[in-house]
Amino acid sequence: MSSPSKSGRPRDADRDRALLVATQDLLAEVGYDRLSIDAVAARCGAGKTTVYRRWAGKPELVADAVALLHEIAVAPDTGDLRTDLVLMAKAWHDPDSRRDAVVGGLLTAMVHDGGLRDAVNQAISVPHKEVFATVVARAVERGEVPGDRDFELIGTAFPALTFHRLSVMAEPIDLAFIERVVDGVVVPALISGGSSPAGGAMSR
Amino acid sequence: MSSPSKSGRPRDADRDRALLVATQDLLAEVGYDRLSIDAVAARCGAGKTTVYRRWAGKPELVADAVALLHEIAVAPDTGDLRTDLVLMAKAWHDPDSRRDAVVGGLLTAMVHDGGLRDAVNQAISVPHKEVFATVVARAVERGEVPGDRDFELIGTAFPALTFHRLSVMAEPIDLAFIERVVDGVVVPALISGGSSPAGGAMSR
Repeated sequence: MSSPSKSGRPRDADRDRALLVATQDLLAEVGYDRLSIDAVAARCGAGKTTVYRRWAGKPELVADAVALLHEIAVAPDTGDLRTDLVLMAKAWHDPDSRRDAVVGGLLTAMVHDGGLRDAVNQAISVPHKEVFATVVARAVERGEVPGDRDFELIGTAFPALTFHRLSVMAEPIDLAFIERVVDGVVVPALISGGSSPAGGAMSR
Repeated sequence: MSSPSKSGRPRDADRDRALLVATQDLLAEVGYDRLSIDAVAARCGAGKTTVYRRWAGKPELVADAVALLHEIAVAPDTGDLRTDLVLMAKAWHDPDSRRDAVVGGLLTAMVHDGGLRDAVNQAISVPHKEVFATVVARAVERGEVPGDRDFELIGTAFPALTFHRLSVMAEPIDLAFIERVVDGVVVPALISGGSSPAGGAMSR
């Protein structure tokens, strides 16, 4: 997510974090389109050059700010598919209305802004896909899940259903909802779903 | 969707339709936030009072314009669950990039605008839920599907996965994708999924 500065000086981790939190606040307050790098810097008593020293632009800053809200834990490994899936989903979406507000201010802009979409997908979707792929690969090894399911599609079911619930239905994500998705959709699709059109390859 | 004018005169169906098509065009071009009723009227050589005679405001006009893009067919009834689901999904999402552009310009605003969200849900989500409920109720009657599945959640899987694909992944909806969703997620969830937390009541 972050990397040492090019100059080799010790990176000011506290200031970077303050800038990312200010970015989160502004996303929740005004949304992506109206967020300015000037405003982010001003909230931290910094100049915009401080921001540009660390981030190439608004999409990259915002992607890091959003990634900071999503704890990308290592893949859970309890030996039970359902438990791993619930733990994974809880790590992505513990009840946190501030996070929902930040992400809500962002989803909107992703439709029209390919650069932002790529940056957010790189920060969130790719790590999530890798955790899901790891959890499922272990279940395949244990014989819990057939190896030819449409893993790529099923891996998007949880993000898609939470995204839809937040934006279209404007309802929050809680543990009860997570368990409904795991038990009602993800596990049955993994266990009883049709084969992948790609023959079960776990494409990433 | 539309109703006779209050005055009892024959409604100018052609003009109404032209106004709705102009609204679709503007949604695709500038998105919801920057769409103005003046601009819609101007495209049809009409005054804004003409628009306000038919629609209470922008959310209602836009909801009707979007509903016109979604053919709300009667529920298919072929006697086979999978075939009915594919036909239903095809009726909602036949390949039409213009429709995707219109809906893409709208999704963004729904997060922040409760009035628009309610209007769009009333125009699209409610009729879709009813068609899904009808198709599934027949499959339950035929014994293809157990009666206690989480139908409410499963009914959102297709809209959620298409919405996610359009906005987050920026990829189109085609027949191959529809079949992946039906075979990989919806049918397995209906046949093998867990029970509904509400005990299987088909809530709407």
